[in-house]
Amino acid sequence: MYNKINNEDIAYLKSFIPAGRIFVGEEISADFGHDELGGIEKMPDVLINVLSTEEVSKIMKYAYDHDLPVVARGSGTDLVGAAVALEGGIMICTSLMNHILELDENNLTITVEPGVLLMELQAYVEERDFFYPPDPGEKSATIGGNISTNAGGMRAVKYGVTRDFVRGLTVVLPNGDVEQLGGKVVKNSSGYDLKDLIIGSEGTLCIITEAILKLLPKPSESVSMLLPFKTMEKAIEVVPEIIKSKASLTAIEFMSLNTINYAEDFLGKKFPDTNYEAYILLTFDGNSLREIEEEYNKVVDLCLEHGAIDGYFVDTDERKKSVWNTRGALLEAIKASTDLMDECDVVVPKDKVAKFIKYTYDVSKEVGLRIPSFGHAGDGNLHVYLCRDGLEEKVWEERCNKAFDLLYEKAIEYKGMVSGEHGIGYAKKAYLKNQLGEKQIELMRGIKKVFDPKNILNPGKVI
Amino acid sequence: MYNKINNEDIAYLKSFIPAGRIFVGEEISADFGHDELGGIEKMPDVLINVLSTEEVSKIMKYAYDHDLPVVARGSGTDLVGAAVALEGGIMICTSLMNHILELDENNLTITVEPGVLLMELQAYVEERDFFYPPDPGEKSATIGGNISTNAGGMRAVKYGVTRDFVRGLTVVLPNGDVEQLGGKVVKNSSGYDLKDLIIGSEGTLCIITEAILKLLPKPSESVSMLLPFKTMEKAIEVVPEIIKSKASLTAIEFMSLNTINYAEDFLGKKFPDTNYEAYILLTFDGNSLREIEEEYNKVVDLCLEHGAIDGYFVDTDERKKSVWNTRGALLEAIKASTDLMDECDVVVPKDKVAKFIKYTYDVSKEVGLRIPSFGHAGDGNLHVYLCRDGLEEKVWEERCNKAFDLLYEKAIEYKGMVSGEHGIGYAKKAYLKNQLGEKQIELMRGIKKVFDPKNILNPGKVI
Repeated sequence: MYNKINNEDIAYLKSFIPAGRIFVGEEISADFGHDELGGIEKMPDVLINVLSTEEVSKIMKYAYDHDLPVVARGSGTDLVGAAVALEGGIMICTSLMNHILELDENNLTITVEPGVLLMELQAYVEERDFFYPPDPGEKSATIGGNISTNAGGMRAVKYGVTRDFVRGLTVVLPNGDVEQLGGKVVKNSSGYDLKDLIIGSEGTLCIITEAILKLLPKPSESVSMLLPFKTMEKAIEVVPEIIKSKASLTAIEFMSLNTINYAEDFLGKKFPDTNYEAYILLTFDGNSLREIEEEYNKVVDLCLEHGAIDGYFVDTDERKKSVWNTRGALLEAIKASTDLMDECDVVVPKDKVAKFIKYTYDVSKEVGLRIPSFGHAGDGNLHVYLCRDGLEEKVWEERCNKAFDLLYEKAIEYKGMVSGEHGIGYAKKAYLKNQLGEKQIELMRGIKKVFDPKNILNPGKVI
Repeated sequence: MYNKINNEDIAYLKSFIPAGRIFVGEEISADFGHDELGGIEKMPDVLINVLSTEEVSKIMKYAYDHDLPVVARGSGTDLVGAAVALEGGIMICTSLMNHILELDENNLTITVEPGVLLMELQAYVEERDFFYPPDPGEKSATIGGNISTNAGGMRAVKYGVTRDFVRGLTVVLPNGDVEQLGGKVVKNSSGYDLKDLIIGSEGTLCIITEAILKLLPKPSESVSMLLPFKTMEKAIEVVPEIIKSKASLTAIEFMSLNTINYAEDFLGKKFPDTNYEAYILLTFDGNSLREIEEEYNKVVDLCLEHGAIDGYFVDTDERKKSVWNTRGALLEAIKASTDLMDECDVVVPKDKVAKFIKYTYDVSKEVGLRIPSFGHAGDGNLHVYLCRDGLEEKVWEERCNKAFDLLYEKAIEYKGMVSGEHGIGYAKKAYLKNQLGEKQIELMRGIKKVFDPKNILNPGKVI
């Protein structure tokens, strides 16, 4: 089906990619053989650190003409195997395309290369009093990766997800053609929405080489509050009450004491309070403290009425650091607490979060796996982790599959979706198909074929 | 290519659609032969007022099996011929599917049938203290129509467009299959984004039979201000200054004295001030007057510094009525001022609006047509009207084509798009192709074929 890369191919690629940016066979670091999903490894035959749209176009044109598979990769932080070169071939790494090209203050947009890291983008705009709201936990992911999975993050409650902040894309199609989708315009009703089709397509339809992102003015004030509850059930049940109150919140996160304990161990640092089983972390932002105050007073009163034990301001530098470092380290901490883990990134309607979390406890007992979780209570997106904890391969696989079946079944029952922000990649394909049904998968396969008739771009992913 | 509808087809359709909801041949009102685009008329052979997803599915299955063309239609208010049955066949009218199915206060969503009118939806949610921000000028359009063109409206500056408020869709595919896309979930990274592909596809990929829309809490306060300027240039040039100031505005509209005069004649009512050539209308909203006050004081000071003659509050009931009625009547008023008109709904980056408006004056002189305009200065979406004013058919067509060529060329030069919110339909196909190029049109045609291999759904539109 695909051709195996040969010496002629290598010679051609080296004719325009200088040494130091192209690596062949054993020269390639083992890091490029996997992403953050455990249990799947496959090395590309050639790794190229690209610098420009033109280079990507030239590589794709050659790959298309010679039937070579290609995978694009940013920081490789994804959790579903989307950036693994299952068929070998060429890996295009965008890490060196990490320049901020233009900050346009008249149109409130920023134009960036795909390899810019989320944390670099956030720092750059915030220093200049602008704001890029999408805030996934993994700050060292690239913007190209964030767009390819439609990453969401904590501030989706108020601001939405990555999709809502992408105004335009420059993309290279599988045959090497370069196309502009969208632009700096705010409204667009000009033909089918190819831009939104690319967002979240996990590098299977084209390679993103430039993005125009929407910015907001930076809110001058932000306040976070930590509220302990006796049980996780009580904690999560307060969330629909908050939403019904119509208060304006930026983020509503939940954390259980056991995941906080993993993070304390992992970071070697104490969380400000560890007397209760569950915690809700609320964030409010705006342009005046007065305005925010009205909101948080209303919400904290409501939480106290509905079972919160207390409400702490996360205000001192020390406390901010302690709370946000813990929140930021939860994934790594759970990972460090076991030998292998797999994850379930379901999203359910907001009023089903409490029930779903409770259900993970039932599944944990039923299948015999530790299943810690944390996540975005305010937008229904849960991060649920299945931990191997030294189980034998076969037992682990059986229990893991059973747990996934139960969890995704429940998500469907609640009219949720398989993935809220991590994507489908290689690992969740079967569950996607199970949820969407044959017809929608068939439509998606048809679309894939329209963009990539030879199936050379990131084969074996999503559908 | 298509079969002509025969008596057997009619008999089948009448077997499950009762009399009173199905009309054949001359029974069909002439209204269904056109939309609001002048100069194009074509009657469908059968008109069916559907009541349910099941009926739509049954009709589509039959049409698919028998190669009959089908066009879905709501209120027929569109301006590009998208709802005209160019090939005859079956017209499915959704006007009777006008029920609000569920208001979900836990998830801040509302589920509606496609025939609900925008004004009905807005009234329903606002009575209950919720807010559906998209606010296109044509309030008697259906929600199904708004979704099919990704309508924008005045409040896009702060809140975005229809796309940003569609969480889920129930659609009937050309072969009659019924699919759910998205749902009540806030985040979604589960396969290709079919939902956003349908939004703005003008009824060419499937028929929308239900929509889950996102709501916001209703802002308790809203303030509008009217600012006169000596010239349109001065008026529009202030807009980038407002945007750069990072003030939070809901809407920034511009109106010229001549369009205001048409509206005065049309409505038989006076506008509060007609001493100046150009007016900017600003809207602010929020949850406290204090908060809004800070914003509008900042913005009005800025405008006065940059050439505004004055700043009137649009506060008394009388003044509100006068200003908003005028703004709402601009399109109808321009239409009433001439025998025939055509429109250009370009969107350009916000900082190009002033230049583009100035360019319409040049084009008017160059081609010899009256070209009034108004629109959304705050989001770059302009509504530019070419008026026939009694010209002979051939002269009108020549001048009209020349003007369109010049206007769309300039839009491309400014990196704008052919349509901000009215869509492509039948009338703008050539300009879309010219802007996007062969490759993107080819991708769109490929997608159309994946959804509608027999090209029976709204043929001859968009691409």
